[in-house]
Amino acid sequence: MSSYSAPLRDIRFALFDVLDVESSFRHLRFDDAGRETVDAVLDEAARFCDTVLAPLNRVGDEFGVRYDKDDGSVTTAPGFRDAYVQFSDGGWGGLAAPTAYGGMGLPHVLGMPLEEMIDAANLAWGNFPLLSHGAASALLHHGEEWQREVFLTKLVSGEWTGTMCLTEPHCGTDLGLLKTRAEPNGDGTHSITGTKIFITAGEHDLTPNIVHLVLARLPDAPAGSKGISLFIVPKFQVARDGAQGARNALRCGAVEHKMGIHASATCVMNFDGAQGYLIGQPHKGLAAMFTMMNTARIGVGMQGLGLSERAYQNALRYSRERLQSRALSGAKFPAKPADPIIVQPDVRRMLLTCKALIEGGRALSYHAGLQVDIATHGASEAERKQADDLLGFLTPIVKACLTEWGVECTYHALQCYGGHGYIAEHGMEQLARDARITTLYEGTTGIQALDLMGRKTMQLQGAGLKVFLGLVQSFCEEQAGNDALAEFVAPLREKAGEWQALTLSIGKRAMSDPEEIGAAAYDYLFYSGYVALAYWWARSVAAADDSSQPQAFKDAKRETARFYFARLLPRTLAHKAAIDSGPAPLLALDEAAFDA
Amino acid sequence: MSSYSAPLRDIRFALFDVLDVESSFRHLRFDDAGRETVDAVLDEAARFCDTVLAPLNRVGDEFGVRYDKDDGSVTTAPGFRDAYVQFSDGGWGGLAAPTAYGGMGLPHVLGMPLEEMIDAANLAWGNFPLLSHGAASALLHHGEEWQREVFLTKLVSGEWTGTMCLTEPHCGTDLGLLKTRAEPNGDGTHSITGTKIFITAGEHDLTPNIVHLVLARLPDAPAGSKGISLFIVPKFQVARDGAQGARNALRCGAVEHKMGIHASATCVMNFDGAQGYLIGQPHKGLAAMFTMMNTARIGVGMQGLGLSERAYQNALRYSRERLQSRALSGAKFPAKPADPIIVQPDVRRMLLTCKALIEGGRALSYHAGLQVDIATHGASEAERKQADDLLGFLTPIVKACLTEWGVECTYHALQCYGGHGYIAEHGMEQLARDARITTLYEGTTGIQALDLMGRKTMQLQGAGLKVFLGLVQSFCEEQAGNDALAEFVAPLREKAGEWQALTLSIGKRAMSDPEEIGAAAYDYLFYSGYVALAYWWARSVAAADDSSQPQAFKDAKRETARFYFARLLPRTLAHKAAIDSGPAPLLALDEAAFDA
Repeated sequence: MSSYSAPLRDIRFALFDVLDVESSFRHLRFDDAGRETVDAVLDEAARFCDTVLAPLNRVGDEFGVRYDKDDGSVTTAPGFRDAYVQFSDGGWGGLAAPTAYGGMGLPHVLGMPLEEMIDAANLAWGNFPLLSHGAASALLHHGEEWQREVFLTKLVSGEWTGTMCLTEPHCGTDLGLLKTRAEPNGDGTHSITGTKIFITAGEHDLTPNIVHLVLARLPDAPAGSKGISLFIVPKFQVARDGAQGARNALRCGAVEHKMGIHASATCVMNFDGAQGYLIGQPHKGLAAMFTMMNTARIGVGMQGLGLSERAYQNALRYSRERLQSRALSGAKFPAKPADPIIVQPDVRRMLLTCKALIEGGRALSYHAGLQVDIATHGASEAERKQADDLLGFLTPIVKACLTEWGVECTYHALQCYGGHGYIAEHGMEQLARDARITTLYEGTTGIQALDLMGRKTMQLQGAGLKVFLGLVQSFCEEQAGNDALAEFVAPLREKAGEWQALTLSIGKRAMSDPEEIGAAAYDYLFYSGYVALAYWWARSVAAADDSSQPQAFKDAKRETARFYFARLLPRTLAHKAAIDSGPAPLLALDEAAFDA
Repeated sequence: MSSYSAPLRDIRFALFDVLDVESSFRHLRFDDAGRETVDAVLDEAARFCDTVLAPLNRVGDEFGVRYDKDDGSVTTAPGFRDAYVQFSDGGWGGLAAPTAYGGMGLPHVLGMPLEEMIDAANLAWGNFPLLSHGAASALLHHGEEWQREVFLTKLVSGEWTGTMCLTEPHCGTDLGLLKTRAEPNGDGTHSITGTKIFITAGEHDLTPNIVHLVLARLPDAPAGSKGISLFIVPKFQVARDGAQGARNALRCGAVEHKMGIHASATCVMNFDGAQGYLIGQPHKGLAAMFTMMNTARIGVGMQGLGLSERAYQNALRYSRERLQSRALSGAKFPAKPADPIIVQPDVRRMLLTCKALIEGGRALSYHAGLQVDIATHGASEAERKQADDLLGFLTPIVKACLTEWGVECTYHALQCYGGHGYIAEHGMEQLARDARITTLYEGTTGIQALDLMGRKTMQLQGAGLKVFLGLVQSFCEEQAGNDALAEFVAPLREKAGEWQALTLSIGKRAMSDPEEIGAAAYDYLFYSGYVALAYWWARSVAAADDSSQPQAFKDAKRETARFYFARLLPRTLAHKAAIDSGPAPLLALDEAAFDA
């Protein structure tokens, strides 16, 4: 079985040394988020994840969830309910929620390591509270006050969980096609009818009620995505005064059998005239949906990071223990019957790839999380707007890159085990299966790429990119006289310039051919991710040098950054070449000729 | 559930148009391998795979294999035994085996499409006959005549199956560490004692006997890999006259629970003084082992190809059927509620990546298979030697590239399905899980890379590479006046020159630092694979142009080649940059500092 120990040293390094969140917290007036409090929160979160959640990871994979077709109930894996009670009792679901609704009111960015640790410890379990966050965001930003008091407080306390009911059998990406109907009942409530699929945590036995947020069409709705409204549809009816009533007319019709995250309940939900309340304005559901979705997207990015970390920890231990063959330059451990495989350059290639993507990805994603705090609590409109632009730009990068890197890292880590990696008892193959969902749900990688290239770069004229490039430029200027950093700053400066030019060049070509956007999107997203990571690696080396970390830690940062610049950043060359080739190689072949 | 239909058109194109096997068969005096015979063999193989094996793929995944710990027996999935009987009755196990031992005596290269189709139809099933090939090769090349008559004929007829018992719990790659003992009994037999793991088809109910080829140490064996001998150890004892005797002292101790290929019996085999016969010379078992292994490596490469093809076929169908959103340049199918997703450039990127890797990989691997025929039946020693050099060079490329591409293609194909790809009923996730073993067994990708870089390139001074570069050069010269091919020939010529220079440069650096070999190996292997594929794509376009194929087929080849050159060949840029960075970024970090 794979093990997990929360990487608190590097988490703290990312927060305090690289991002200097203490300054940000002071500036944003998080008076209760002093270093001691944050340290205590991290310690306690790590303890919960390491000792409560992590040991349930394999039993969850083996047990899955049990669906009873007679009553539509879903039973979670042994231990899941107890863990959930501890989670709620610890107040973890409300870490960053406003105190007005029962939350701890801590900075959102502290939710990033919490999610990372939860997902590393037990991804399938983590999906139960995860969707509550999305639902809570939608209620906070779009709900009426009574809706917040009745529903949001229960989500924050963890007494109930939430879902996002978007997908239908015939529509996932293209929600404009959705068919679920909402009929006004004349009493302020609506009757919701339709079938939703892939509903994470749609039914379970962790809490006495479940708050479904459901996209549906009102009778007078315009066709397409401009005719979608959002509704609160609880499993048990809830009156406006909060009193829980009768079982609502909705039911889990089936649970899916999946490649991984077996213990996560992925439900078909049938709504048969279920009572619901409209959230926000009629036909404006998509905006509220995106509030949920963006929260969930960053959260899924953390899933990729968490799985990578767990996979790396185990691969590293195995590579140190497994004795096989000798180093090509002669035995490194002549007293042993063979050298540990970690002496092999190719094993190191796989381990260092994980290490570089994980630690770089940690800084990248936490920085994105910090923008949520600035966008909410920033001192000026300009500051908040800039953070929001940056967050919008970083969200698809965090989601797509960290999940694809999660697939890659779990791949490498399994590969380090050789044939043993393929055997269930070692737990590495579960990590690989679990990771595979993350590039699919909450918008596939291709959809993230279109969001970045089409919406965030073209429509919004690269507002977020400009902010990010500004950070890169400031950093390069600050470090201009630092010889110890020149080996990173010089190539970073060059890549940043290329990034800007590449963006302009795609934009120009897209003026005459909109297919340029779709053709460039995937490669542009990864190009951006690798350059962004180069920035975070350069900054990490600088932060380590300036810190009071032990010398071995500083050396490890520098050597890992060298590996990153030498062996991973060159992936941008292939991405750039693909972008430069334009749409023709993708579009020339007729649909019918793919199997000519 | 995923479906499969053997791609006979492209298989025939690769054999007859690209490789012109008819000329080779005439030259090699395969008088019974005329076009009509070959066509009939392919048709019948396709029928067997499509209608008998493919429908058993999912039931195999669900049933797995059942192990009875009381008697050590293994029961295969429903239908597997019937399919095996049909396979044996059809003589498929002896397609390329010598007629002297009951085979059909057809060219080895025809076994390549057969394996591809079997693996696409049902990889787990295909593992039962696959290992018989390796065992048969070892017997053919290293066995005594009576051993061939007794054992080889049964493997060729399919009456028995074979295994390769190499791995032990503490040694996989490094067989020098193995502990299994062989004690002479004084009557020409030996008693074999030890534990072997990961034994594919080690126990099953398909045949009345199983022929284990077991690596073990004689009492006077030198330490390490020079003290290993190979033994024939049947499940039921067999006398020298072929009479089957008592149950031998060996037993399946467990079957592994794996990520995929659930229906393949991966066994722990316990030998407890089992009676065995030495094959070949004492202490020379490793050479015999490599005979088995090389056969199996090419076979595993075909597994990657077969899975890619099946995954692609299903992703293509789904991408044509799934209606979602519109093309960015405007609706392509305005009468439908949305466009099929195949209009999206990013979906095409994934499909075309599969198509390009599959069709290019087909030509590459069949060409390697043809070298087996030339190495055996070539008219002169020089011709045979050249084919053998080329085969040795191509084997790790075929094994590693086609399996890694198999992982990649099953990944893309699943991704085309969005969330539906993660659900078991669509069958795409099984293909991804099944593919994951292929980069591990019969030598991991890292081991293939070391074989290519260390042995085939450095030790053998690039003999095989020289042959291959000669083919490329001849082709470029032939096509020098062909304007229609210039867009491919020019970059191919450039890449071939770069490949040669890169090889020399690594070789030069490796003189002073042997770690260069391990540091460059992985990237050099893929660099080589992509340049080799560029050659096969250029040749495929030329072959299509010269053929009587329909215009749509010719166009599809050209457009796919353009995609390959524009979007996949640039991966060589990243591989080259990684190679050029040398060992330092991989080796600088101290073992202890990976989690500093």
